[in-house]
Amino acid sequence: MEAIGKRRWVIAEGFIPSESMVNANDALLSHETACILNCGDDPAKVAITVFFSDRDPVGPFSLTVEPRRTAHVRFNDLEDPEPVPRDTDYASVIESDVPIVVQHTRLDSRAAEIAVMTTMAYPGA
Amino acid sequence: MEAIGKRRWVIAEGFIPSESMVNANDALLSHETACILNCGDDPAKVAITVFFSDRDPVGPFSLTVEPRRTAHVRFNDLEDPEPVPRDTDYASVIESDVPIVVQHTRLDSRAAEIAVMTTMAYPGA
Amino acid sequence: MEAIGKRRWVIAEGFIPSESMVNANDALLSHETACILNCGDDPAKVAITVFFSDRDPVGPFSLTVEPRRTAHVRFNDLEDPEPVPRDTDYASVIESDVPIVVQHTRLDSRAAEIAVMTTMAYPGA
Amino acid sequence: MEAIGKRRWVIAEGFIPSESMVNANDALLSHETACILNCGDDPAKVAITVFFSDRDPVGPFSLTVEPRRTAHVRFNDLEDPEPVPRDTDYASVIESDVPIVVQHTRLDSRAAEIAVMTTMAYPGA
Repeated sequence: MEAIGKRRWVIAEGFIPSESMVNANDALLSHETACILNCGDDPAKVAITVFFSDRDPVGPFSLTVEPRRTAHVRFNDLEDPEPVPRDTDYASVIESDVPIVVQHTRLDSRAAEIAVMTTMAYPGA
Repeated sequence: MEAIGKRRWVIAEGFIPSESMVNANDALLSHETACILNCGDDPAKVAITVFFSDRDPVGPFSLTVEPRRTAHVRFNDLEDPEPVPRDTDYASVIESDVPIVVQHTRLDSRAAEIAVMTTMAYPGA
Repeated sequence: MEAIGKRRWVIAEGFIPSESMVNANDALLSHETACILNCGDDPAKVAITVFFSDRDPVGPFSLTVEPRRTAHVRFNDLEDPEPVPRDTDYASVIESDVPIVVQHTRLDSRAAEIAVMTTMAYPGA
Repeated sequence: MEAIGKRRWVIAEGFIPSESMVNANDALLSHETACILNCGDDPAKVAITVFFSDRDPVGPFSLTVEPRRTAHVRFNDLEDPEPVPRDTDYASVIESDVPIVVQHTRLDSRAAEIAVMTTMAYPGA
């Protein structure tokens, strides 16, 4: 399929709660995700930069999304160059060498139940 | 009414939980939906392609949205060429031969209560 | 302030649950809202058309948003030419004679707790 | 990094519940937030104007987002020229002298659990 999307996306919200509901399995742990679709025929080399309120940005976190594949990237799982801190406001810029589409999701299970929210990221260019 | 929207839309997030709250009726079963509006005067022939993280895309799932009608298509109900697997990350591209508008929704009742989220899909072209 | 936005907006999702939590006050009744901002200096004459899956569209529902005012219009409260049915899939097109911005929200209290979701409407023109 | 975004954004929805769940800590108090990312190299001088349904707009609320920083601004915390009233419909226009990205979030803990919602703001210009 023809590549769809943009090469640069912004998610201005970011916050990974350190707490989760009792007995949460992996799917129900509090998490934030950048859902990336690369529907084109070339691999997407993706670089994520994370911004904070009170210190310099961290990154790039690098990954590849293969052709005709989706990757739902949990910010919780980013480790290189350093983990994303919990209970901390952040924002992110996602850059790719080919067009992709990025959608942002949070599952929040700090209370006894879950809450979810989603939005398309902002297509910067 | 004049047709409004685009011919190609992307939803990068996709995940149908296999679990639902106890005694959920059909409306409260965990589900994901592509809400499609065809406000124009011609039928919309719609083709949905579903992408995965670890295998080739599946589709097209084909349907028609009649003129001046909305169709709230549950991914749970797609069966041809094959059902959308539960508890599995996916993404989707929705193509139409006339302009339509697509909005994505998830109702998640894995916990004892419900959570909901929505966003406009990304208008690809 | 200079007018901001577009003259035509689409919300493809629509569903007003007929049920609400026990003892819900008016704010916590299950509802769907079109939040409209008219930040310009002229009144906005707004016409809402509601589309269904199995019958012809209904409308226009007419209202005015005064200059430099917001109106959070509950679909639950629309009555002329007819109420919006509960537990029924719908979609809507919102037209204005001056630029406005439209954001869609649902508060869902069918279960014992509340769930909320929001998205910008799709700016058609 | 090169500046990304727009200089004017609109959030048409606004409502800060006066109530929160019992024993809510600061993070779980009912609140609405404008998450702002200034990924460029110049400070962003930001002015927020708040609109109501039945009276003239209030503002500007002024703040600066430093270069390469994010600010998650709670409407609950705005105080100058006056606090944003609770349990009241409002909307907001966010203006900046350099490009920024704005995402809107509400955490609602009026019931015993939390609900969350988010959307990109509307990029006005």
